[in-house]
Order: sequence, then structure tokens, then C-alpha cells
Amino acid sequence: MSTQAPDFPSYSPGILSLLPLYYVGWADSILSPSEVKLIRNKVNELEFLTIAEKRQLVEWTDPSNPPAPDLFKHWVNVLRKQAIKLPKGTKKSLVELGLEMAKKSSTDQEILQWQTEGAKEALHEIEEALGIQNSQSFQTIFQDQESTEPGFNIKTLKALLDDKYADTRDRMRTLLSDPAFKLETIREKDDYRNQVLTWCKMLADRGFGALSYPSEYGGKDSMGDYIATFEMLGYHDSSLAIKFGVQFGLFGGSVMWLGTKKHHDKYLADIGSLKLPGCFAMTETGHGSNVRGLETTATYDPKTNEFIVHTPNEGAGKEYIGNALHGHMASVFAQLIVDGTNHGVHAILVPLRDDKGNLLDGRRVEDCGYKLGLNGVDNGRIWFDQVRVPRENLLNKFGDVDEQGNYSSPIENPSRRFFTMLGTLVGGRVSVPRAGLSSAKTGLAIAIKYALKRRQFAPKDGMPETILLDYPSHQRRLMPLLSKAYALDFALTHLTHRYVTRTEEDVREIETLAAGMKSYSTWFTTKALQECREACGGKGYLAENRFADLKADTDIYTTFEGDNTVLMQLVSKGLLSDFKKSFHDEGFMAVLRLLGSRVGFTLTESNLFFKRNTDIEHLVDPEFQLEAFKYREQKLLISVSQRMRDYLKKKIPGHDAFLRCQSHLLVLANAYVEHVILKQFINTVNAVEDKKLKTVLKRLCDLYALSTMEEHKGWYLESEYMHPNKSKAIRRVVTRLCKEVRNDAGLLVDAFDIPKQCLAAPIVL
Amino acid sequence: MSTQAPDFPSYSPGILSLLPLYYVGWADSILSPSEVKLIRNKVNELEFLTIAEKRQLVEWTDPSNPPAPDLFKHWVNVLRKQAIKLPKGTKKSLVELGLEMAKKSSTDQEILQWQTEGAKEALHEIEEALGIQNSQSFQTIFQDQESTEPGFNIKTLKALLDDKYADTRDRMRTLLSDPAFKLETIREKDDYRNQVLTWCKMLADRGFGALSYPSEYGGKDSMGDYIATFEMLGYHDSSLAIKFGVQFGLFGGSVMWLGTKKHHDKYLADIGSLKLPGCFAMTETGHGSNVRGLETTATYDPKTNEFIVHTPNEGAGKEYIGNALHGHMASVFAQLIVDGTNHGVHAILVPLRDDKGNLLDGRRVEDCGYKLGLNGVDNGRIWFDQVRVPRENLLNKFGDVDEQGNYSSPIENPSRRFFTMLGTLVGGRVSVPRAGLSSAKTGLAIAIKYALKRRQFAPKDGMPETILLDYPSHQRRLMPLLSKAYALDFALTHLTHRYVTRTEEDVREIETLAAGMKSYSTWFTTKALQECREACGGKGYLAENRFADLKADTDIYTTFEGDNTVLMQLVSKGLLSDFKKSFHDEGFMAVLRLLGSRVGFTLTESNLFFKRNTDIEHLVDPEFQLEAFKYREQKLLISVSQRMRDYLKKKIPGHDAFLRCQSHLLVLANAYVEHVILKQFINTVNAVEDKKLKTVLKRLCDLYALSTMEEHKGWYLESEYMHPNKSKAIRRVVTRLCKEVRNDAGLLVDAFDIPKQCLAAPIVL
Repeated sequence: MSTQAPDFPSYSPGILSLLPLYYVGWADSILSPSEVKLIRNKVNELEFLTIAEKRQLVEWTDPSNPPAPDLFKHWVNVLRKQAIKLPKGTKKSLVELGLEMAKKSSTDQEILQWQTEGAKEALHEIEEALGIQNSQSFQTIFQDQESTEPGFNIKTLKALLDDKYADTRDRMRTLLSDPAFKLETIREKDDYRNQVLTWCKMLADRGFGALSYPSEYGGKDSMGDYIATFEMLGYHDSSLAIKFGVQFGLFGGSVMWLGTKKHHDKYLADIGSLKLPGCFAMTETGHGSNVRGLETTATYDPKTNEFIVHTPNEGAGKEYIGNALHGHMASVFAQLIVDGTNHGVHAILVPLRDDKGNLLDGRRVEDCGYKLGLNGVDNGRIWFDQVRVPRENLLNKFGDVDEQGNYSSPIENPSRRFFTMLGTLVGGRVSVPRAGLSSAKTGLAIAIKYALKRRQFAPKDGMPETILLDYPSHQRRLMPLLSKAYALDFALTHLTHRYVTRTEEDVREIETLAAGMKSYSTWFTTKALQECREACGGKGYLAENRFADLKADTDIYTTFEGDNTVLMQLVSKGLLSDFKKSFHDEGFMAVLRLLGSRVGFTLTESNLFFKRNTDIEHLVDPEFQLEAFKYREQKLLISVSQRMRDYLKKKIPGHDAFLRCQSHLLVLANAYVEHVILKQFINTVNAVEDKKLKTVLKRLCDLYALSTMEEHKGWYLESEYMHPNKSKAIRRVVTRLCKEVRNDAGLLVDAFDIPKQCLAAPIVL
Repeated sequence: MSTQAPDFPSYSPGILSLLPLYYVGWADSILSPSEVKLIRNKVNELEFLTIAEKRQLVEWTDPSNPPAPDLFKHWVNVLRKQAIKLPKGTKKSLVELGLEMAKKSSTDQEILQWQTEGAKEALHEIEEALGIQNSQSFQTIFQDQESTEPGFNIKTLKALLDDKYADTRDRMRTLLSDPAFKLETIREKDDYRNQVLTWCKMLADRGFGALSYPSEYGGKDSMGDYIATFEMLGYHDSSLAIKFGVQFGLFGGSVMWLGTKKHHDKYLADIGSLKLPGCFAMTETGHGSNVRGLETTATYDPKTNEFIVHTPNEGAGKEYIGNALHGHMASVFAQLIVDGTNHGVHAILVPLRDDKGNLLDGRRVEDCGYKLGLNGVDNGRIWFDQVRVPRENLLNKFGDVDEQGNYSSPIENPSRRFFTMLGTLVGGRVSVPRAGLSSAKTGLAIAIKYALKRRQFAPKDGMPETILLDYPSHQRRLMPLLSKAYALDFALTHLTHRYVTRTEEDVREIETLAAGMKSYSTWFTTKALQECREACGGKGYLAENRFADLKADTDIYTTFEGDNTVLMQLVSKGLLSDFKKSFHDEGFMAVLRLLGSRVGFTLTESNLFFKRNTDIEHLVDPEFQLEAFKYREQKLLISVSQRMRDYLKKKIPGHDAFLRCQSHLLVLANAYVEHVILKQFINTVNAVEDKKLKTVLKRLCDLYALSTMEEHKGWYLESEYMHPNKSKAIRRVVTRLCKEVRNDAGLLVDAFDIPKQCLAAPIVL
């Protein structure tokens, strides 16, 4: 499609002064006969034009003979060349640009005429005649013509993405590039599971398993490094990531966070080295999301100083338990019953197999069989038939039973105790979306690299076929996803920071954040990989190109570690109770008045301008973007609060009231998460010092912000937050941003620095 | 959650007269102090009330003591019981309902007082005081309380779905219920492929393979029965469906539609019996969507009266070819070169293997290896090295070469010839979405049946846990998909009818329709199965519950038989050229004026009422729904036409102009397809005579129409087709419809009559 423009003469100052206006005039619309007449008259009146210039300029207004594509391209080139010479960063109107260009190519004598107010005024009149809004600046017009920031350094970007765990990430990159970690298709589950177990041991041998444990047990006391390791495995084989997470994060984590020193001393080192493979046996067939309803019991027998762990019925069997076929021990979550009293769900260590791997008496284990994905993980079902374990096997940090059968707990309130114990799951909710994001990034890298190589359909016979990523529909398909991948990366880094530095005060808030980020991110992963697979056509369907595994393995991320739909409701409940709490003293009406006035701000008559403001400067203003996201969150929060309050006033039971608001709650949680993500993205862009990188990231951030608003345009229009013209303007800007980001796309996926061996899809080689 | 309401007294006529108003007043809003005062005054003024009745009615207006949930439920029961006695179909306001109820329970003496205008007026005043819009009729209020049509017969529905191919469908149901067709997980591709080949032979032996061929070749000359067979295989194993389609539909179809009698006589019987397994070798690695750019050549050699079939470079190898490992022959699409002249792409039969299955000289075949799904299909790559085949192997219906090397064709125009030959693909585009829909229906049946059994979370300790499908979010998740599955079923049946009765006049229109339906339906399948998998949580991830295969196998449907994104652009191009053609004489401005006035109708000031009409009667009026869908299609068509015209006027090359409108074109195609689907759904409902079935289907149709409009509310609001209040009202109606359809959901999936052996997911047993 790149035809060489024929040779055009260089332009005189007079022509140059009007070129920006002419360009935009022809680019954006057909000139009507009356416009043409007006322009011609104006041109003929201009004192600073020569007769030859006037003739040329009048000729260029002929609607029956508009500038040919080649001439038009030449204009673009001239304008861009001149524009580059101008000082960077200054925003100029088209008129100013024209004057500047005229000046630069004038002799010293001529130069003065371009500095009079008269010249400027005359040009503005033409601008008006052309129907060009004076808000359009030259940057606006030429942005989509500019290529990427030349010389933008992806190493700086990689460092930003790798954050403070760059060292662990690089060590993992080296390891995953080792031939021992070469990916291969192993169809039989038993073989595949053995391969994954072998890999898992290699990781443990190199100290990756124990990273989050204290140094006395071989660790580094760094949850952040553990999470970074887990994330890197998302680029490789997700079965390995999950096996790793089950062993070191869930099983090990339960011992570390729910157990006490005696358990740490006895088990942690062996868990970290994988000498003691174990399970996290929480979910039951009958109870997944509703953990509190688990039916397995651990009944204290004071006569023998033992707990009797028992599965009361078939449906109370432990379900989907990772490591069930390889594990020698399990943290079993069960109703703790002491002397006839149920103290609620507690975790207790139950040996499963002897040293030789033989199943112990009273345990029954069944293979879950083949799954949609993750077939390298040995998931199974476990039933217990009156299994006796010593009293000290109770992980007793938050609830203990003494020899005499007295129950005690540092947390009085059973409900708070339950949620504190469940807090051990939060680490999983911080980690899983990171591994999922790595898989999504792998898919994006493959799809984008392929789209930069693959051609299909030529504009004309004999011409080269068009590169896929030059199709606007392909840009629309992939670029917003790329921007969201970056957005999520920064937001998940923020979540990790918050999580590893959490205190008792902010732990609840972080749990809400983790629940929301986990759900939003894993849904993104599913969606992005689907889109990427389709974008690669038939090639995307071949197992060799990785989408088969990437998609299948991550599909369950939306379910495990908390079903996304359930988690999103938790998020909203958290937001609602914070909302109620923070205004407790003032009363509800005060809240509404307060927030009403704040949120309602943009809706007042005096802000008609805001609603209709379609200037690009406004749309890419972070303040506007943040305001829009915040507005959505707060408006939803207030309206759902009102609805809940109305229902409760009518004595509708809380559970019913929640059900009636369920869809509303899910939307609220979505708005909250997106607001958090945008805030982090903007903070990240602001903190970047490298100017070129800043420009690239700002563009990505704009694409994330505006494409997200575009997704929700139904809501924004329904809420009358914006005028239809504004939502149309957003669509246009998104299209333009997609085109611009397309130029950076290759570098942006390279910056992920995905180990080549993980990216080894033949279509991108 | 079903608590038995305590015993309440039966109500006196006076109470009954006001009960509908009271119910709605309390159900929809909190009563404000001033409203309470007003109502109390009115009640005390009513002459027809006794003192006891007045006391009771005043008591029930106490905002500090609103009616308890039990009492409220009692009201619903009373109202519903009374309502059932009323003549069906009559639309009554709440006031009328109250009067009717009062009359029915009055003595003959009392009855008169309810017939005075005074009583009616008084009630209307209360209605007003309660702030109830008088548009609300009793049907509106109680619709969501009604259970399904009692006694609605799913056999009638099954017959409707099975259409005129019920016989073939039932034969397939019997066959697929045979133990020989029991589904099993076969992980190794070679074993799996052999199983599929065996099944395919069983189908051929029973005459299913030849159904579309003339009777002299063992067939029934019925493309409709072939399509029905293919559709049924979508319930079973999609690898079998695709293998079946490649052999009998594509390979056999190419011989039948592109070949002439000599080819039919020689091959069709053997193809139908699977004695001659073959391939449809069109796609190449370098050229998928762009068939015209294929590089394989078939060069005529007059010396030997042969064609030389050749792959000029590695990337010109045939790719993803089904039956490549089992096939003995291939219809190869190649550039036909005669005496140095390229006559464009033609199909030619090339033997691949001898009778013993050994590959012949000059052919190279490579296994495509494992794929995301469909691993029971032997897809491969094929290269030809100067392979010679006799002249008569050219499928010569649309282009022939005589012995002397003279090319001739019944179609002069090479472009028309090319598209006529490609028309053989249309059968695939009619069939594939049907098989995909069967897979989606299987997924929906499993997810809905599971959601009707599975419980999670109790409203309160000690109460039974809630059934998943009683959660509004779960209804929102699955019910619109169910309605869309029905919508697509009827629309695809319509497509089949059109296709099997096509004439030369409407073939172009049917091709457009097929391209659109194929894309829209297969995207639906992907989306629906994803949602169903997630809705089944961890259980949905286990291979035994079928989603693994259903999802993986159908994933490629969005790509093969024409990439969806490419097809949707074809659809829009078809619409655009029809549009231009149909108004050719009048000129473009006349078109705009004409359509502008028609489409603009609802936008005029005088139609402010329409934009704001939120009455349910209006929203479920098929005329409104059709108008809304049509408006979207036409407005998009006009605006894209305008844009194209503007670009072309500016001398922007056609290809570039199309690119600039690409996203717009995709939206237009979507609008067109949805309009077609709604029309067919409405036609189907109208044609149903069984009243109960009609009611059930009308509700589904409303859910399809309104949930689709809800999806596009951004567009409708942006176009100012409706006021935000209307789009909010649509959301509320969709929520209500989801709740209502939930009651029919079990029966609606039973009506698919999916063979039990195909539905054999342990979670629904």
C-alpha cells in the first residue's frame, strides 16, 4: 500500500500558511458549494498571497476535482516535516502552525508579514469558513500520523514491569529457558503429572518453593518473591504453576498461617523442599463457595487425645483437591466438634500416605480424571472414614483444644474467626490473577507478533497483501486488550505491594481489593485469550501455537480461589458496609446530600458544557477520566445503598434484599475495580521519568480509560453523564488510539520479556 | 425459602377493592409521610367502606410498620387467585381489578355500589395519591408472579423445533442412543481418529452420508435431511460431525456441485458409502480467507491431455485439510493455467493414496498434530510436486478445457465465475452453525439442569440452601442465552428452507444471509458455552461433564467455513450494494430523503412520547421490537453509505474507504442478522396455534428482543432513539422476563430432546 508519491514542488510561504487548514478541510469533510465560495472569496482577499499562490489555492477548493490521494499524502509529509522542527510539547492551533511554517520558509524581509494580527485574523476567518472547530490543535490532527516514539527503550519498560522483584523474575527467566523446561504436549495425564512433579522438584531444589517462608525453614520470608515466581510460571505451563501454588502456597501457607511454631518446625522445611507433598483439602462436592457449610467433621476424643476426621456422606467428600494423588498429607478443613459443640470450620493436618506412597487406612482417594485443562495437576476427591489424628495436628493459631477438651481462641467472635482463617486464601487471590495475566500476555504476544507478519488480501491485484495489524478491525480487536494487560499489570503490582505490607487496619480493604482484582483479571484472561485465538485464525487452533493450553488451563481461574461472581458480590458488600460505616454519625440522608452534591456536580445545568465537551484535550485529561470512573462507582454505590435501605425498611429480609440487588452489586464491583485500576495506571504514568516511555504509556493509559468508558457507554448515557456526541467522540478517539498504539505494539509485547521457550509458537518464529 | 404463610382471614369486598393498589404501593416504593396522610384522608372519605375496613386500611399505611413479608405474600396469593377467575386476555387497570374483585365477593345487594362512577373515581384518586402510573395494568404487576403455563406440552414444541426433518432427526436420536455411539474420552489422536472413522462408516452404512445426493447414487436428494443429520451430530461428538461434513458435504459436495455427470457416475456412490474417503483441499497456509490468492497451480499439458498439479512453494501447501490422513482423493483448488493464461481458481480431483492407503508419488502429507479440539479429525497439510492427473479430473461444471487446450465456461465474467464456484461453500455455512447450536444447546441443557438441582448458601442457618437458578444473577446469566438459542434455532430453520429452495434470483441474498447467520451463531456458541461452563463452577471443568469437548471442538467454528470477521464484512458489502442498486434511478440524495423520513420518524419532536414510552405493553409489542431492530439496521446502513460515498468522492480508493469503515461495517452486519432473527422468531410465534406454547414462546421472544436491545443500549441512546428512562425500563423488563423464563427453563431444554447418551454429564444425572 505504500505508493511512492510523485515529485511535488516545495511550497511557498503563502501556500504553507494555509496548508494545515486545507489539509484538515479536505480530510474531514466534503466542502459544500457555499463553503467553497466563501473560501475562494477569502483567499482572493488575502494580502500576503501572490497571484500564483491564490490561483493554486483556489484550484485546490474545486469540489469536482479534490486533491488526489498522492497530493494529499504529500501535504501530510510536508506538514509533518515542518511540524517536527517546531519546539516539542507546544500546542499549536492550525492557524499558528501555518504561520510558523510560513515564517520558517520566509526570507528575513518577508518574515514580518506573518507576525501581524491581520494575517492571523485572516487565517482564522478561513478556518471558520472551513467549519473547523478552533479547539483542534495541530497535535490532535497529526497524532495518528506519527509513528512511535523513536528510540523508546523497552528495557526501561521491562524494569518498570518487573518492579522490585526483577531479580527473582530474571532467575525464573533463566530457569524457564533451560532445555529441561522445554514445553511439550503430553496427552496422558499420568505422564504429564509426573513431568510436572519433576519440574516442581527442580523449582524446590533451587529454593523457589520456600521463598515465602522464614529463613530458618529455607526461605526468604518474601511473599512478594513467591508471587513473582508464581507469575512467571504463568508464561510456562499453568499445570506447573498450579501444582506449585497448591504445594507451597496453599498447603504450605495453611501450615504457616494457621499453624503455630510446633507445626512450622516440624513441617515447613520439608514442605518447601517438596519432601512432604501435601494438599489443601477445603472444597467439598456439596460445598464450594459456601465454605461455612462444609460437612466434614473433626471431633475431639478426650479419651485418646485425638481428633476423629470423618466424611459424613458421599457429597461431603473433598473435591478437586490438587496433589491428591501425589500428596502425603492434607490440611483438612472440617467442622471442629468438641464435646458436642460445633466451633465452626478449622484446619487439621491429616496424613494421607506412608513414605512409600501407599494410602493409609480410612482414606479413600479418587482421581478427578481428565479436565478441560490443567491435566498436569493431579486433582482428586478424598473421603475420610473415622480417621484418627493426634490433637497437635490441629492448626491451632486461631482456635485450639486442650487435653481436657476445652476450646479456646484469640478471636471471640466465631464469624470474625472464620473470616480470619479464610484470610489465608487471600494470598491465592493475589497470585492467581498474576499467573493468569502472564498467560494472557503470552497470548497477546503471539497474536500481535503474528498480526505483524501475516498478510491477507491486497488492495489491488499485484500489490502486496495488507498486514493484519493494519486492519482497523484487527487493531480494535487487540489494542484495547493490550492496554488492559498493562493496566492490570500495574494494578496487580499495586495489590502485591499492599498485600505484602498489610496491617491489621487495612487487611479488610486489601481482601476486598484482592477479591475484585482476582475476578476482573481472570475474566480478562479468558476473554483476551479467546480473542487472540480467533485473531490467529486456523493457526491459533493448532496446539503447537499455544492457545489450546493457554485457554484451557486458565479457564478455571474464574472459578477457583473463589468463584468470580461470588467474589464480586463480596466486593460490593465490602463497599456497602464501608459506605454505611463512614457516615454512621451523620445519618443516611446526610450521606445522600453530601454525595449527591458531589456526584451530581457534573449533572447540573451549568455543566452542559462538560457533558458535551468532545475536545481531545479534555478526553485524554486524566482528571476527566478519573472523575468519570469515580462517578460511575459512586453513583452505583449510592443507588444500591438506597435500594437496600428501601427493602430493609419494608422488612424484606437482608438475604432477599441482596438477591434483588444482585445484578446491581455485580456492576458496582466492576466499577470499583476499574476505578482502582485506572488510578494505578495514572499513578504509574505520572511516576515515570523517561519522557519517551511516559508518552507511550500515557497513550496506553488513555486507550484503557477510553475503551473502558466506551464499553460502558450505555451506562453513561443512561445516567446522562454525557451527551451522545461525547460518547461518539470517545469512540473516534479510541479508534485513533488503537491505530497509534499499533505502532508500539511489537515493542510493548517484547517488553514483557517472555522467555523464548515459552513463546515458542511456530507462527511467530 | 418457602415459608408457609400463617393463616390470614379472607377479605371483605371493601378491602379487596383497594388491595391491588395497596400491593403495588408497598411493592414499588416507600410511602412518604405526605403520601400516607393523603391516602388516609381518602380512605376515610370512601363511602363504600365499613368502619372496620377503614381501620384496617389505615393501619396498613403505617410507614413505621409496613406489611410483614408474610402478609405481603398473602396479598399476592389473594390477588393471583382472584385474577385467575377473571376472563383471560382482558387488560385491566389496578382500579378495575379491585372493583372486579370486590364485585365477585359481594352479595347481590352490595354489588351495585361497585358499579358506580363514584367508586371508580375514588379509587383512581387513591391510585394517584400512591403515585402509581395509570399505565400499569394488572397483568404488568402479576406477570412475574405467575408460574409457567400449566400443562404446556413439550412434544408440541419438539415438533416445532424438529420441523419437517423430524423423521431424520428421530432416526439420528435412535442411532446416537446406541451403545456403539457411547461417548468416551480418547486422548491419543490416532485412536480417536479411528473411532471417528468407524462411526462415520456406520452413518454411511445407514444411508446418512448420501442423503443430499440423487437417488441413483444412494441418496434422497435432500439437502435438508443432510443438514438435519449434521445438526444432530453436534449433540454427540463434533469430531464426527466435522469428519462427516468434510467427507459428504465438502468433498462430496464439490464433486456434486462443481463436477458433471461423468464425475457423479464415477464417484458419488462411493463417496456416499465412504468407500472413497476424500478431502476438500482449498485453504493454503498462505491463503485462507483470500481464496482468490491461492498459489497452487493446475497447468494443462496438451501433449499428454493431463493437468499438472503443483505447489509452487512451502507456504502454498494445503493447510488444515480434513481427512488428509485417511483420504484417498482430494478436490484440489488451484489456479487453472492453460497455454500460459490463468483462468482463476478451479477444482480438480487428485488421487492421494492407492487402495491400500499408501501415499502416491509426488504427494507429501503432514499431520497438523494436536489441536485445541476436534482431535478426532485427521487434519493435515498437503503438498503436490508436479502431480499429473487426467484432463477429465477437472470438475468442469463452471469451466472446462478441451483436448486442444481451449478453455470455456458458461459464465463469462471471471469474478462471477469465481463466486459461483465458491457458492459450494454456502452449504457448509448453512450447516456449521446448526451443529454449533446443537453443542450450545447441550451446554445450556447441562448448565440449566445443574442449576435446578444445585444449591449453595442458605438465607439463614437451618434453612435449605438456595437453588442456583433462583439467584437473579444466575437467571441473568443463562436465560437470555436460552432465549437466543431458540431464536437462532428458528432463524436457522428459516435459512435451511431458503437454502434448499433457492433460485438463481435469490441465491445472492441467501449467501449473504448464510454468511451472517454462520458468524453470529458460531460466536453465540462460543459465548454460551463459556458462560455455561462458568455457571457450573468446578464441575463444569471436569471432562466428564462435557464442557471441555463442547468448548474446544466448537471454538474453530468462528474461523472455518469463512472467518467470521471476514464474513461479516461480506454481509455488509452485500447490504451496501443492494442498497445502492435498489435506488439506482432516483439518485443518492433521493434515497437519503426517503429513508431519512422513514427512519427519522421516531425522532421527531412529536414522538417524544415514543422515546419515553416505558409501558410494558409497548415494550413487548412485536411492532415496537421490530421497528427498533429495523431502525438500527437501516440507520447504520445509511450512515455507512454516506461515509463510503464521501470517501469515494474524495477519490479515496475503494479498498481504503472500506478499511476506514471496517468497524462500522461489522456493526451493520450484526444489526442486519439480529433483525432477521427477530423477524423469524416473531413469525414463528405468530404461526403457533397451541395457546400455551404461544405464551411460552412469546415470552422467550420478548426476552431475546429486549435483552438484545439492552446489549445495544449504548447505540440506541447514542442515536437518541430512546430516552434513558426507556432503556432503564427495558432492563427491568429483561430482569423480570429472566425470572419468568426460569420457570419454563427445565421444560425448554427438555424440548430439545437431546439423546441421553449425549447429555450424559454426571452432574445432571
